[in-house]
Amino acid sequence: MGRLRPEAGPVGASTGLRYLGIDPGLAATGWALVDGGARVVACGTIRTGPGAAGPRLLRIVDELRSVLAANPVDEAAMEELFAGRNASSVIGVAQARGAILVTLASAGIAVHEYKPAQVKAVLTGYGMATKVQMVRMLSLQVPVPSRLDDHAADAVAVAICHARSRRLHQLVAT
Amino acid sequence: MGRLRPEAGPVGASTGLRYLGIDPGLAATGWALVDGGARVVACGTIRTGPGAAGPRLLRIVDELRSVLAANPVDEAAMEELFAGRNASSVIGVAQARGAILVTLASAGIAVHEYKPAQVKAVLTGYGMATKVQMVRMLSLQVPVPSRLDDHAADAVAVAICHARSRRLHQLVAT
Repeated sequence: MGRLRPEAGPVGASTGLRYLGIDPGLAATGWALVDGGARVVACGTIRTGPGAAGPRLLRIVDELRSVLAANPVDEAAMEELFAGRNASSVIGVAQARGAILVTLASAGIAVHEYKPAQVKAVLTGYGMATKVQMVRMLSLQVPVPSRLDDHAADAVAVAICHARSRRLHQLVAT
Repeated sequence: MGRLRPEAGPVGASTGLRYLGIDPGLAATGWALVDGGARVVACGTIRTGPGAAGPRLLRIVDELRSVLAANPVDEAAMEELFAGRNASSVIGVAQARGAILVTLASAGIAVHEYKPAQVKAVLTGYGMATKVQMVRMLSLQVPVPSRLDDHAADAVAVAICHARSRRLHQLVAT
């Protein structure tokens, strides 16, 4: 373990793989592509207007398929979803999650899940970090677009968390 | 409105359309095809074993696509989902729902949603009917397979609710 650099810092050479981070939501789904060295290749947010859930979910997965067609990825990562106090908003997020999970499964892309506290700890060294602290730490660690919205930022964070976890496993295994 | 028969009884001639009722769930998704006269054409339950959500959702939508390929439908119906006390099971149902909604949207099939109390009222005349009362009333009203599980029964119920609502709208409009 002595060879490992701190998890919150850059992790070094790329593993040659590409990872997709997703922050699912019906109104806004953030996505981010990072390489094995946890560098952000591209990121964005898919937005849908009001209306029936089906066509909105279809728009999300159609845009996601376009992203994947232009940028093949090896693995995907998402935060685990918990039923918190705001249970009604959980339904919208879970439905978007279901549509995205089936799309990724159909493309043969395995999805790795991380607890929100794990993502925060990897990015900031502190599992209870606020959203503002997360975005600030993120921008200090990796070059990200200057006007990164919360959804794309969350997608970048989980993708980087996954890339670093993968790199850690690789270092431990060698 | 005088021409209408009671909602809990048979509604008469077919509209010539076919409807798909769905009771979504990760472990078991019930489905039912009914015609415009609210007669059950076919029904069943798609089951998945333990494992990652993505491949399980993919199995559900693959089987659903096979059902739709063999039996084209005009419209679909589902119960609305509410975040009740059992919030953690809501996530699994909502994820299955999202995967199914995007599959139906992709096939150009509109989904109509009904509150659980509406479905019960249409089937039994009583919005607070128990599951046992629902299944008993269902079997008295339409020929259904003798060993109908809860998931297929719920799918039959929402499909019949939709077929009768459609027929009602048609009678009111003429």
